Amino acid sequence: MNLPAPACVLTVDLDAIVANWRMIAAKTKAAAVVKADAYGLGAAPVARALAQAGCTRFFVATLAEAVELRDAVIDAEILVLSGVEEADIGTFTRLRLIPVLNSQAQARIWAGRPAALNFDTGMSRLGFDGDEPVDCRPMLVMSHLACPDTPEHPLNRRQLERFAMIRSRFPGIEASLAASSGIFLGADYLFDWVRPGAALYGVNPTPGRPNPMAPAVRLEAKILQLRYVDEDTTVGYGATHLTSGRTRLATVAAGYADGLFRTLGNRGHAHFGDYRLPLVGRVSMDLTMFDVTAVEDAALVEGAMIELIGTHASVDDLASEAGTIGYEILTSLGPRIQRHYLGNA
Amino acid sequence: MNLPAPACVLTVDLDAIVANWRMIAAKTKAAAVVKADAYGLGAAPVARALAQAGCTRFFVATLAEAVELRDAVIDAEILVLSGVEEADIGTFTRLRLIPVLNSQAQARIWAGRPAALNFDTGMSRLGFDGDEPVDCRPMLVMSHLACPDTPEHPLNRRQLERFAMIRSRFPGIEASLAASSGIFLGADYLFDWVRPGAALYGVNPTPGRPNPMAPAVRLEAKILQLRYVDEDTTVGYGATHLTSGRTRLATVAAGYADGLFRTLGNRGHAHFGDYRLPLVGRVSMDLTMFDVTAVEDAALVEGAMIELIGTHASVDDLASEAGTIGYEILTSLGPRIQRHYLGNA
Repeated sequence: MNLPAPACVLTVDLDAIVANWRMIAAKTKAAAVVKADAYGLGAAPVARALAQAGCTRFFVATLAEAVELRDAVIDAEILVLSGVEEADIGTFTRLRLIPVLNSQAQARIWAGRPAALNFDTGMSRLGFDGDEPVDCRPMLVMSHLACPDTPEHPLNRRQLERFAMIRSRFPGIEASLAASSGIFLGADYLFDWVRPGAALYGVNPTPGRPNPMAPAVRLEAKILQLRYVDEDTTVGYGATHLTSGRTRLATVAAGYADGLFRTLGNRGHAHFGDYRLPLVGRVSMDLTMFDVTAVEDAALVEGAMIELIGTHASVDDLASEAGTIGYEILTSLGPRIQRHYLGNA
Repeated sequence: MNLPAPACVLTVDLDAIVANWRMIAAKTKAAAVVKADAYGLGAAPVARALAQAGCTRFFVATLAEAVELRDAVIDAEILVLSGVEEADIGTFTRLRLIPVLNSQAQARIWAGRPAALNFDTGMSRLGFDGDEPVDCRPMLVMSHLACPDTPEHPLNRRQLERFAMIRSRFPGIEASLAASSGIFLGADYLFDWVRPGAALYGVNPTPGRPNPMAPAVRLEAKILQLRYVDEDTTVGYGATHLTSGRTRLATVAAGYADGLFRTLGNRGHAHFGDYRLPLVGRVSMDLTMFDVTAVEDAALVEGAMIELIGTHASVDDLASEAGTIGYEILTSLGPRIQRHYLGNA
């Protein structure tokens, strides 16, 4: 039986992800953060491509993610950011997983096996307190920056100083502070290892400045129906859009269940070729309408794909229209979207 | 190997969903809308429970969803809202799927096989135009309301009148206009079939008035770490929250990758017992912080679950804090959340 042709496709360029990783790995040793299914792109193919390119260390958020990832990268180090619980020790050791220990309780449970130590230097999130004594000789000492996308924020320098103090208590142990944005704060933030995630996937780690990363994703959705409507026709739920003249509308097979946030209603755009198509009305669960009047009639047919993320609008552009960040756009891409991979999958 | 204990759990009460369906099915024949994986709750278990309770007709958005659903409900009617394409006719007929035809092109492709006809009476989304002649004897004539959650909106009555005209062109054919909210607009909106989705899952179909439906989901997440921080400590990305006194923080294993929208930052709440816990700082991808100072120290331990949706706050309450609707909260619940089922699964 033929599977139905996908109505919504995310094309993931593995070569671009590898190129982004290589650019960062030229600065210092670079792990790859593939939590949340590699930010929605697919942890297994992404990690396989990076491992093949030489990446030896991967970070995930949860043990369940680590268990899944182990099949994809048999030999790599897999570090679990949420730490370890008593009941999971067997799984950790059997799959050679490394917890990132965040508390004395976790350190006691883990009892001296190989681990990373995470210190909280300003997030108030996970980790040992900065001045907390820890009786453990870890493989890595870590912390996480709160404001690295805002280089002028004074907390960056304060966290750097606190982290330098902490790492001095662990002579000879490797250290890691920077994730995607922190990598671009300057050489003193790099330490031994950096932990890029979003930057690998093409999200701009330096908001407000040119994106140093290559775009890695393209999102397209199919036109299910084209129609002409008269002036003064209402469009979508709540009748929030009123046409200002005879208008051609395209109804597209992607909605908020696919990650097109409702905040894009009457604000978002798609592209068809070089045409910029305004999203009109509210986004519905499975469908979204665009004003395609500007495109010549014959150029657009039902079944054609329009571009939601791609060469004309980046993931950050779509995020800006939705009032959020590229990270949340990527992790919200829904399960109905088919993932296609380009490059050395 | 033991699978790790889930850090984030959605409990779906199938008995409540069945009770909601029965309440609606007492008004007129009721199909069930299980598109978008039953709004994130799990289409297979939800549809099985409803079929066992007597529901014979299900709506999905896409052919891929219909293919998956067929295994769960062998004998039920499955209608596909997005219509049919030439390449998919074989799949439709082999699995006894019924397209909802939206255009002359789809009607030509389908060539008189059993189908529903959808007319656009005010959404400008999918469907034949209201006055468009269609040479077909369908099993069902349908349309969809744009403003049913706003009973006083004049478009409701206009769509009702247009739909009454259309259905009069198909004597003896069953008709369906109302989905969840439309069911509560009055008896003249009911026709032969209604198509509840959100209402089955406990979302309030009558916003601003008491919810006539039983709650059907509970969302809980695990506390990974508890810490005390001093006055004037910043919390989370961007340092957007500053503690106003010595504060106890709980870091919880759910973030925007799990569907806790970033718009909940410094606005959302969770509950522990009767305590209402403010969400502090920004939501991060995998983690969220709550101020738990109000709870007695010993009552809260690492590993405890706090409630994000449940007896103290409905899905609509969480949606309101996030600036959206319950529908988008449910369809955005991420794949790391483990679904548990209560009742006749």
